[in-house]
Amino acid sequence: MTDHDPKRDLVLERYVAVPVEKVWAAWTEPELILQWFTPAPWKTVECKIDLRPGGRFYTLMRGPAGEEHAGDGCFLEVEAPKRLVWTSALGPGYRPNPVQHIDLSFTAMLDFQPKGGGTVYTARAIHGTEAAAKTHAEMGFADGWGAALDQLVALMSRA
Amino acid sequence: MTDHDPKRDLVLERYVAVPVEKVWAAWTEPELILQWFTPAPWKTVECKIDLRPGGRFYTLMRGPAGEEHAGDGCFLEVEAPKRLVWTSALGPGYRPNPVQHIDLSFTAMLDFQPKGGGTVYTARAIHGTEAAAKTHAEMGFADGWGAALDQLVALMSRA
Repeated sequence: MTDHDPKRDLVLERYVAVPVEKVWAAWTEPELILQWFTPAPWKTVECKIDLRPGGRFYTLMRGPAGEEHAGDGCFLEVEAPKRLVWTSALGPGYRPNPVQHIDLSFTAMLDFQPKGGGTVYTARAIHGTEAAAKTHAEMGFADGWGAALDQLVALMSRA
Repeated sequence: MTDHDPKRDLVLERYVAVPVEKVWAAWTEPELILQWFTPAPWKTVECKIDLRPGGRFYTLMRGPAGEEHAGDGCFLEVEAPKRLVWTSALGPGYRPNPVQHIDLSFTAMLDFQPKGGGTVYTARAIHGTEAAAKTHAEMGFADGWGAALDQLVALMSRA
C-alpha cells in the first residue's frame, strides 16, 4: 500500500516459528508487551493499549541506571491478526506529538503472514527523511528490533 | 472520541444551509476543493485526493504575489458523509512529514451533522502543544477557516 522507500524505511523481515495469532497477542496485550518489547537490559515497565484507529499505544521503558523513555503513539490500522500500523508522530486521538529536538518520528507497519504453522514477520519503520532513518539505524534499529523479536519468540514459545 | 483540550484545539462550529452530502462532496472532490478551500486572494491551484485511511490529501496554494505553499497530508478516517479526519503530521502512506522550523502540525477533525436540510459543520484543528495552537490562532485560524467555509457555502448553494 505504501510506496516503499529504501532510503527512508528500515525493514526487519524474518520467519518465526510462532503462529500468527500468538504474534498478534504479543503485540496487542499489555501484559505480554511488558515481557518482550524492549531489548534487555532495558525493560518496558508500563504499557497502555487502546486497540483501535486513533487509540493510544503507550510504553514506558526503563534502563539499567534507572533512566526512562516514554513513548505515546497512536494506532492507525488494526486488522487482527495480520496487520497493525501505529505511529510515534501522533498521540491518542490522532493529536500530533510535540516535535522533539531530534526528529525520530516513524510509523511502524507490522505485517504477519501465516506460513507452515509459523509467521513471516515483517516490521517496517517509515521515516520522513533519510536523516531520521539514518539516525534510527545508527541507534541500533536492526539489532534492537531483532533482539526484541527474539524475546517475543522465546516468550510465545513458552506460552 | 478525542479528549477535547481547549488550550490545544481550535474549533469552528456553524450551521450552514447546505445538505451534508454537498458538504462532503466539497471536501472530497478535488475540482470542488480548488473552488473554495483557500480564502481569497489566495487560491488552491492543485489538489490530489486518495480518499481512504493512509491516502494522500495534497493541496498547493498560491498567493497574490505568486508565493506558494504546498501541503501533503494524510487521511485517517473516512466515513461518508459525516466524518473526515486528516493530519498534516503525516503524508501519504502514513509517512511522518519532515519537521518544519515552526511546529504547526495539526489534525483536522470534520464532523457534519444533518439538521433541517442543512448541516451543523464542526471543524477542529488539534495541535500537539499550546504554542502550536496559539501560533495557528494568530495566523488567522478563525477568520481563515470561516472565510473558506463561506466560500464552500456560496459554491455549493449554486451547484
